[in-house]
Formats: sequence, structure tokens, C-alpha cells
Amino acid sequence: MTKKVYVVGHKNPDTDSICSAIVFARLLEKLKDQGLFLDKDYEIVPCAQGKPNPETEFVLERFNVEPPKDYDQDYDLLALVDHSDLTQAPDDLDGSKLLAVVDHHKIGDVTTPGPILFVSMPLGSTGTVLKLLYDLFNVSIDREEAGLMLASILSDTVVFRSATTTDLDKEIAKDLAKIANIDDIEAFGIEMKKKLSDVSGLSAREIILRDFKDFDMSGHKVGIGQVELVDLSDIEPRIDELLEELRTLKQDQGYHTIVLLLTDIIKQGSLALVVSDDESIFEKAFGKSLEDNRVWLDGVMSRKKQVVPPLQKAFEKL
Amino acid sequence: MTKKVYVVGHKNPDTDSICSAIVFARLLEKLKDQGLFLDKDYEIVPCAQGKPNPETEFVLERFNVEPPKDYDQDYDLLALVDHSDLTQAPDDLDGSKLLAVVDHHKIGDVTTPGPILFVSMPLGSTGTVLKLLYDLFNVSIDREEAGLMLASILSDTVVFRSATTTDLDKEIAKDLAKIANIDDIEAFGIEMKKKLSDVSGLSAREIILRDFKDFDMSGHKVGIGQVELVDLSDIEPRIDELLEELRTLKQDQGYHTIVLLLTDIIKQGSLALVVSDDESIFEKAFGKSLEDNRVWLDGVMSRKKQVVPPLQKAFEKL
Repeated sequence: MTKKVYVVGHKNPDTDSICSAIVFARLLEKLKDQGLFLDKDYEIVPCAQGKPNPETEFVLERFNVEPPKDYDQDYDLLALVDHSDLTQAPDDLDGSKLLAVVDHHKIGDVTTPGPILFVSMPLGSTGTVLKLLYDLFNVSIDREEAGLMLASILSDTVVFRSATTTDLDKEIAKDLAKIANIDDIEAFGIEMKKKLSDVSGLSAREIILRDFKDFDMSGHKVGIGQVELVDLSDIEPRIDELLEELRTLKQDQGYHTIVLLLTDIIKQGSLALVVSDDESIFEKAFGKSLEDNRVWLDGVMSRKKQVVPPLQKAFEKL
Repeated sequence: MTKKVYVVGHKNPDTDSICSAIVFARLLEKLKDQGLFLDKDYEIVPCAQGKPNPETEFVLERFNVEPPKDYDQDYDLLALVDHSDLTQAPDDLDGSKLLAVVDHHKIGDVTTPGPILFVSMPLGSTGTVLKLLYDLFNVSIDREEAGLMLASILSDTVVFRSATTTDLDKEIAKDLAKIANIDDIEAFGIEMKKKLSDVSGLSAREIILRDFKDFDMSGHKVGIGQVELVDLSDIEPRIDELLEELRTLKQDQGYHTIVLLLTDIIKQGSLALVVSDDESIFEKAFGKSLEDNRVWLDGVMSRKKQVVPPLQKAFEKL
């Protein structure tokens, strides 16, 4: 009987999470054919814990790739991409069913009873790490796979503007663009980002939760959302509405602190909206005062590299 | 000012832990030269949490390599090899100082505040994973590095006899043997193992602790030691003495269970000596009864793959 491996990204999936699930599923299939990491009788299925966002939809359509299956519990083994935190993994995660993890975030609290394939690197996207794994195991890359990995890099590095961008990301993006027949990488990246920037049809709650992650910081529940905008002024009239919704969300779900980063891709910085039981923690973390629950953080593009670590440190000092 | 990176294996280091610390330090040096993962102003120092055992000493002499420095706390960043468990890491480990982890065991409870290089694979040794990383980043391998990685593979796979051995380990060992000028891999491996097999000059406590690991199993402190022997009968006259010492160690250090695996490389199996608050846990894990605190486990060569997982499961069911 065929057994199933699900490959799945984090909750509230972004382009890297969805594309990497699809690409890693294909890579695992080819590694299986080489006799590596998996027996022949497994079927490998890319999944997602949520719907593709408009940026991801654009990418999937551009390269003619089916969106991944909705995650359910009908699997035998699980592979995680783009996270290694229990809070972002499927709620039913059982370490003994884990086959593999490919990631580029901090090392989370996922543990396993036995050895597995676990590859995480301090690079701009999970797509970059996947490209290195293709090379490592001498697996060839087709146009669709190259397109999705390129899109992962462009999405997560905010078209090479995020502090998480490395030279290796840029180099690998160039290689992938050739295979994917993308002539102008920058233009393709901005075209992707424009799809996310249009929030006119969304409710305040939808804007907040579209790319939202939960963290446990020294025992406190902290949520951080991010909205990437080609122009911040598009969202400015809705800031009071967003703050109101952040307060409701905080109350309803018992957060200590919620942050929403409104990131301006062109100006290269983020307006942080903050509701917190103790605003001074955020202020200490960034050395800036909040006014009316908001502050402009110049140069801050990356939640992972520029927001989570200082905030986590400030919570540790409590 | 020069800052220091220490590269260190687990407590009670075996050949893989020591050789991989040396080799990964050299690889990091070369990656630093490529501008990867580390700034230029770092010095990289291989370290060990304990003295090399006779097998490791033999390997280091064979390839004319200096033993690593004794671990101390005089470092700025830390890289772990051959483990990702807090119990086996240096006691002062601080995730924010972690630069990298390369391993082939279960995914442990080490976490970090930011992204790092973390590569663990279900292969026979950390040496095997390191060889793949050399290839991945196009770094050339010299004779010493090849010799140490080959020794890691041979030591950890018990000269390809352990259940942890994969085809990739064998293939990579062949490649490394060519670079290291080792004509007869099998003979070299058995020569290494004979150095460990001679325990005549050691006290019972020294035999037990030479390759001994602590585990937290569902809140219980469990210790598992392993002695690899070319012939089990060499140690048989000392079994009562070993059991007595296991009882003392259990009492002194508050273990729930201590297991000592006397592994016969030629017969391919292990005589397990067990002292426990509840022997039935071990018996359930392996479906065999203990007699006078001992039982022969046919085919069991690997603590990691064949002893830890069933024991951990049995503890979870308590």
C-alpha cells in the first residue's frame, strides 16, 4: 500500500513556504529514486496550511504550477519547509513522523527521536537552501522548479532589499533566472510584490493575519505580522482601523504584544504598529519611543533578522 | 581584535566527535575565505570536551594531526559537531553564540534566536555529512582531512557493520580512502577498533564512561555507555565488576536507568548490562527478559538507531 509523505510550510503561508513545499516534494521524489532518505513505496504530496496569497497565486500561474493540497492529517511522514518551530508547524506534529526539515530561520523547538535530514542555513530563503540541495545531490532543475525557487528568493528577500539577503542568494537567483527564462529579475520581483501591496479588498483582520507569526518570548505570547507595500501611503488612511483590530486580536487571543510591520519596499523601512501590555519592552528593543502606538524603523525590512532577535532579547531581560 | 570560534563535539568524545571538530574547523576556515557564514576577523579553533580515546589517538597519529584543544569558555562563537542535545553540549551553551551545527543524530533541543548553519543527515557519521558539505561549497579536501573523515565513518559505523551504515557512507568512504592513501579500508577500520577493544589497563568506571551519553527520557535521567570489542570474551571476566560499578554510578548520580552495551564487532550484536529502577521498561523496549541484569541483543550495534529510540518510546508509554 502506498504511504504518504506531506511536505508543508508554516501557518499563514507566504510564497517561500508554498513554493518550497512544492519544490522540496519534487526533490524528495528524485532523491527517493536515487535510494536516498525514503523507501520506494511513498507518495510525496506538497501541502499548505492556508491559501496562497495574491503574490504566490501570481507566481504559481506564471509557471503553470498547481497550488498545493490543503493540509490534513492523512499522512504517514511529514517534511517541514521554512520553519522548525512547533508554534508554526501543524498542531498534530509528532517528531517521530518527521522525515525532513529544510529552513532558513532560527533553530526552533522541533525535536525527533531519531536522525532525520535537517538542513537550515542563514540565507535569504528556503528556496536558496533547496537550490543548494539540488546541487549537493546532483539533481537537475527544470524550468518550473527554477521559477518557484527564484520566486521564493525574491519574495523573502523583498527583491534583495532585506537585511537577510546574502551574496549567495543573488548568485543563485541569477542561475535560477536563466533556467526559468526570466530576463529581468528586478522587474519580475517588483511585479510579484505589487500583488501583495494591493490591500484595498481586504478587511483589517485579513491584512494583519495574512503574514502573521506567533512567538513564545520568555513565556509571553507575541504575534508579529508584516505587510509589504510598494508604497506605504496606500495603507496610511487605514492605520487607525488596523490599530483597533490589533487591540481586539490581542484581547481575544491573549497576546502580551502584537506588532504589525508596514514595510515600505521603496523607502526601505517599516512603520511598526504596536499594542502591548508593556510598550517599554518594544521601546527598549529598538531604542525608540512609540507615539500613538507607532514608530518608523528606518532600514528595518526583515522580521526574522531585525525584529524578532532584539525583541526576544528585550523579553529575556524582563 | 581577533575573535574566536570554538568547534566542539559531545561530552566523552569518540573518534567522530574529535575528527569532525578538527575537519569542520578547517572547512569553516575555507568558507570564511569565500565570505560565507563568518567574518574575516575570526580565528577557528577545534576543541574537545575530554581526552581522545585510544582509537582516536591512533587516527590522529596516523595522519599526523594535532589533538584538539581542551574546551574552555574563552570563545565568542561556538560550532557543535556530532550532537544537538543540550545534555551533550558544553554546560555553558548559549544559543545566541551558536554559529553552526553539523550532526547525524536525532534533532536535539538546541535552539537559537537567529538563523544559523544547521545540517544534520540520517547518515553513518558526522564525517559523511562534512564530506557532503565540502562538495556542496566546492572546497577541496587534503589528505589529512580525508583521513579524519574516513576514520569518522569507520569508527561510527563500526567498519560498516552498524545499522546506521548507508550506501552513501560506503561510497564516500571509498572516495576519501583514495585521497587519504588508504588501500585496505576494512583492515584500517579493524586496526582502529582493536585500539578500543583493549580495556585491560582501564578501571571499570573508565570502561563505562569512555563512550557514555546522558539522555532525558520523559523526565527520567538515563545513561547509555557502549564498548566496542573485536571479541566479547576479552571483557567477560569483568562483567560482575562492571555491574557493581554501574550500580554505584546509578546511585551516586541519580540515574533512573543505566545501560552498558558490550558490542561484539565480529559476532555483530551487543550484550546489554542494565541497572534500572524499573527493569520492565528495558524489557518492554526490546521484548526480551533480563537475567542477572544482562541480555544479548542480536544484531544491535548502534546505540543511536537501535537502542535510544525503542527505550525512549518505552519511557513515553510509562
